[in-house]
Amino acid sequence: MIDAPETDEGWFALHDFRTVDWDAWRDAPERDRETAIEDAAAFQKHREALARSDAGDSAVFSVTGSKADLLFVHFRETLDELDRIQRSFEQTEFAAYTERAHSYVSVSEVSGYVSDEYFTNPEEVDDGLKNYIEGKLTPEIPDDTYVSFYPMSKRRQPGQNWYDLDFEERADLMAGHGDVGREYAGKIKQVIASSVGLDDWEWGVTLFGDDPTDIKDIVYEMRFDEASSKYGEFGDFYVGRRFPPADFDAFLAG
Amino acid sequence: MIDAPETDEGWFALHDFRTVDWDAWRDAPERDRETAIEDAAAFQKHREALARSDAGDSAVFSVTGSKADLLFVHFRETLDELDRIQRSFEQTEFAAYTERAHSYVSVSEVSGYVSDEYFTNPEEVDDGLKNYIEGKLTPEIPDDTYVSFYPMSKRRQPGQNWYDLDFEERADLMAGHGDVGREYAGKIKQVIASSVGLDDWEWGVTLFGDDPTDIKDIVYEMRFDEASSKYGEFGDFYVGRRFPPADFDAFLAG
Amino acid sequence: MIDAPETDEGWFALHDFRTVDWDAWRDAPERDRETAIEDAAAFQKHREALARSDAGDSAVFSVTGSKADLLFVHFRETLDELDRIQRSFEQTEFAAYTERAHSYVSVSEVSGYVSDEYFTNPEEVDDGLKNYIEGKLTPEIPDDTYVSFYPMSKRRQPGQNWYDLDFEERADLMAGHGDVGREYAGKIKQVIASSVGLDDWEWGVTLFGDDPTDIKDIVYEMRFDEASSKYGEFGDFYVGRRFPPADFDAFLAG
Amino acid sequence: MIDAPETDEGWFALHDFRTVDWDAWRDAPERDRETAIEDAAAFQKHREALARSDAGDSAVFSVTGSKADLLFVHFRETLDELDRIQRSFEQTEFAAYTERAHSYVSVSEVSGYVSDEYFTNPEEVDDGLKNYIEGKLTPEIPDDTYVSFYPMSKRRQPGQNWYDLDFEERADLMAGHGDVGREYAGKIKQVIASSVGLDDWEWGVTLFGDDPTDIKDIVYEMRFDEASSKYGEFGDFYVGRRFPPADFDAFLAG
Amino acid sequence: MIDAPETDEGWFALHDFRTVDWDAWRDAPERDRETAIEDAAAFQKHREALARSDAGDSAVFSVTGSKADLLFVHFRETLDELDRIQRSFEQTEFAAYTERAHSYVSVSEVSGYVSDEYFTNPEEVDDGLKNYIEGKLTPEIPDDTYVSFYPMSKRRQPGQNWYDLDFEERADLMAGHGDVGREYAGKIKQVIASSVGLDDWEWGVTLFGDDPTDIKDIVYEMRFDEASSKYGEFGDFYVGRRFPPADFDAFLAG
Repeated sequence: MIDAPETDEGWFALHDFRTVDWDAWRDAPERDRETAIEDAAAFQKHREALARSDAGDSAVFSVTGSKADLLFVHFRETLDELDRIQRSFEQTEFAAYTERAHSYVSVSEVSGYVSDEYFTNPEEVDDGLKNYIEGKLTPEIPDDTYVSFYPMSKRRQPGQNWYDLDFEERADLMAGHGDVGREYAGKIKQVIASSVGLDDWEWGVTLFGDDPTDIKDIVYEMRFDEASSKYGEFGDFYVGRRFPPADFDAFLAG
Repeated sequence: MIDAPETDEGWFALHDFRTVDWDAWRDAPERDRETAIEDAAAFQKHREALARSDAGDSAVFSVTGSKADLLFVHFRETLDELDRIQRSFEQTEFAAYTERAHSYVSVSEVSGYVSDEYFTNPEEVDDGLKNYIEGKLTPEIPDDTYVSFYPMSKRRQPGQNWYDLDFEERADLMAGHGDVGREYAGKIKQVIASSVGLDDWEWGVTLFGDDPTDIKDIVYEMRFDEASSKYGEFGDFYVGRRFPPADFDAFLAG
Repeated sequence: MIDAPETDEGWFALHDFRTVDWDAWRDAPERDRETAIEDAAAFQKHREALARSDAGDSAVFSVTGSKADLLFVHFRETLDELDRIQRSFEQTEFAAYTERAHSYVSVSEVSGYVSDEYFTNPEEVDDGLKNYIEGKLTPEIPDDTYVSFYPMSKRRQPGQNWYDLDFEERADLMAGHGDVGREYAGKIKQVIASSVGLDDWEWGVTLFGDDPTDIKDIVYEMRFDEASSKYGEFGDFYVGRRFPPADFDAFLAG
Repeated sequence: MIDAPETDEGWFALHDFRTVDWDAWRDAPERDRETAIEDAAAFQKHREALARSDAGDSAVFSVTGSKADLLFVHFRETLDELDRIQRSFEQTEFAAYTERAHSYVSVSEVSGYVSDEYFTNPEEVDDGLKNYIEGKLTPEIPDDTYVSFYPMSKRRQPGQNWYDLDFEERADLMAGHGDVGREYAGKIKQVIASSVGLDDWEWGVTLFGDDPTDIKDIVYEMRFDEASSKYGEFGDFYVGRRFPPADFDAFLAG
Repeated sequence: MIDAPETDEGWFALHDFRTVDWDAWRDAPERDRETAIEDAAAFQKHREALARSDAGDSAVFSVTGSKADLLFVHFRETLDELDRIQRSFEQTEFAAYTERAHSYVSVSEVSGYVSDEYFTNPEEVDDGLKNYIEGKLTPEIPDDTYVSFYPMSKRRQPGQNWYDLDFEERADLMAGHGDVGREYAGKIKQVIASSVGLDDWEWGVTLFGDDPTDIKDIVYEMRFDEASSKYGEFGDFYVGRRFPPADFDAFLAG
């Protein structure tokens, strides 16, 4: 019997991708567009302000490429809050100019690969690790300009079956994976959230950085890592640029 | 010749996923929206009330993420009833504000893996098992807040061919699978329904629980189980939150 | 060199899946709906009547689930007739309330697996076999209530390459497959039609039965058969319930 | 180092699949429909007439099944001409009643598998072969009633990697493939055009014949051929029936 | 531990595919069409002019086949510029007649496979190589008439895992790949840009040439190269013909 790692869960995450209906936008009277912009800005400002009060976090990004125009990222303590955020967006005047392009539901997670001790002797865990884990479970969205989101699963093919490896092998592979991540400390922050049972892939990965070539570099370097090269299966990638809610008008003005 | 397990069938299941056409909803006059809400509530109340009378069960869930907004789950004695439910929904005023996003048709099932005796010596089966099996075949929808639905099939690749294993091996693997399920007794209830010949995957799985992290945990833990890790192929996952028919207005108000 | 089996072809088949545009239907004036219903009933009555005169057969089914609402099945002597049926449907008033959801084009077929003799010494074939083969090539649609349609192909992967087996092996596997089918004699009737070169999969399978759990059972049992477990690849499944053309109004009334 | 075969290229091919917007068609005033029919007929008559003057060929087919209603096939000396044909169709009144369903871009090709000599000692090639190759490179569309189109690629999996075979092996397999084709001489004509670098698969295959069961038979028989059974990967299949431009009205009348 | 190659990055690339809404175009008043054409031409002229000033490059192509009508290619120093270009296009009058069909985001790249020295002893690199690499990182769009775009990834299957090869093996395979490319010097120019972490495949390849059969030939020949035959996975292919911004009217007139 192969053992699943122990896990602890933190905030739930909603990645909400929207396209702008540019035809409707161009055709809208100036006054309606102003109301819509104000509404969008107020909605998002409110979400980001609430978020700062330790109960989650929110940010909005302009997405490059035609798969979406906007990515709203929300972390919250409960799935219910995400459900309400998603529907309350539909009540804004701005929603009329958008269509849902994609979404992703997940929950931030730490597992026994990171620290066995955290699960077996929680009292003995030092403050550094505690803070590290706390940061993983209640992930603040950093101020970095760029974001990359993609979902991933571990393979279960003959000869490449992650779920057939024993715990030690998986822990070793995860440690190697973590080593690559540490090379990018200060350049790339990442949020890993589990979507097993919640969405179509097993994890959602969100990377933040101030230089998009760092995003390219870390994903490329990790692809040579056995945890990815043999066992990783990746979904679609979305790249975006953060903007403050006050800049919805600039975003929509092109 | 490999033997198929014996099976017994109970209620048929329809999982009916709908998106809300929020643009139409926002544009509708207040009066039309009120009628639509009343109609939706009455439709679903009626389905749930009828259902409680031992002839099936029904529930509605708010779906998180953009794949759908609503999931209607209906269990009924016959496929015809499900067919009628699906079309009678289209006669409601509320239907005008929804679009069909997805659906799943299946029939609840117990098989020889659970109890060979039930099929070979039905009179000798004890009451506990009889009740257990009855519960599997006429599955009441529990009051738990959250739902997760996903379809699955067993693999038939070289080296991972479920249908090429002999009965004993499959029964052992299913027993191991059941052991994981029992760890979640009291936390997670599941309905397994066969869709072989009825829909695109071989089974539809519906999980109910009061904590969505339990849903994540049980699916994750089971993935390490050989029945899943080697032989399971999974479709898209949908997660939702139950609400009573009386709350359609709250749901639609965001 | 591997030999293809000899084949003989009979009627061509069109499976025409349609969704109802329920929004348009609800919004249509009562008079227009009446005309549309009459038109649909007349169209299908005419197709079924013509069909009974030994030149084919036709039936219409209500499909459960959101992939389609209606399945029209037409068997005809020529592909041209199917082409005309498909376009003449578009001339009905009812067509305005439907959209094409899916279709399948195939031709009923018997092959050397069923009877080598039929192809090598046709005069020596006994009447029983002749009638059996005639029934396969000019398949009347039985009166059974339920239908299941799915397309399938044979695999050509390393270790699971149907087209790499010699004729005897394939004939043996087909015979085993036929044995399972015979267990369901009286319960399930099936029409197997080739779509090689005509549509996206190699065959279309149509099952008819009065109990949908029999449909589930036969497909499930056959999946353990080596012809399916090792060599079968299946597409999407559609399940429906037959109704007479006179019941279009009942169908549309929910 | 594995050698690619030498190739020579002839006419470019555009397969342009369209669906008819039957709702718009039914709603159009009689006069508009007449103009549209005239326009469609004139457009296609012009294309077919020009084509007969040795600079290409064109034909239109009614497609059976819901994937498309019409298939326009155009062979021309340059890719530019195809690009212009595609856009000039959009200038017709008829285009308003159609939507693009699919397309395929390719270039007719002969390769060293057919004749090594043609590439190494072109002067020594006899007239019969020259004519044969000329026919492959400037393929006239025959008058046969039925057409089948499908794209294909060669596999590159371990154990089934066409591109890893040496030239002789590939030439042998292609010769065996050609033998099957020759059995259908007089019944089936085929045009093979390369789409490597031009469209999503490696080749587009167009079969013409007066009996659609011959189309089924040749594709089925070839599937047992090692070049297909081990190395062939096939896309979607479209089947159609040719009609002269003057019959657009009959086509549209159902 | 397998080493990723070192890389250097240059300009970012946006491939922006659009379809023309021909129905809207046909229905638009002459005056609106003129404004739209002028706007499209001005937009693109401006992008191409700016581009010539060493800060990037831009071009527009007519796409053959129904996957798109137009391909806009933009290379720029920053991802932000591409994001703005994409949105400012939506502000043109012409945008109202287009829909987004597809897009691709990538960044031009040179890697240690091309020159280890460039990364280890940059001062010792001779001017020829420096210019070559500079050309790769700041790729001017050549004046060639035809373009072909496709995305690709390297495989990670058992027996065909690029990321499991050591650096020398990969460098050798890339060198063989480069040899094929050099045969087409003067005929085909190519831009290879990485999309790891940015878009759905690992690289985007853009080929330019004056003869579309050269495009077919180079891709076909490279497919026999082990780097492609064993390790390459390819996405959809788009082929187009360049036109100057002043010819938008000719393009739209068919």
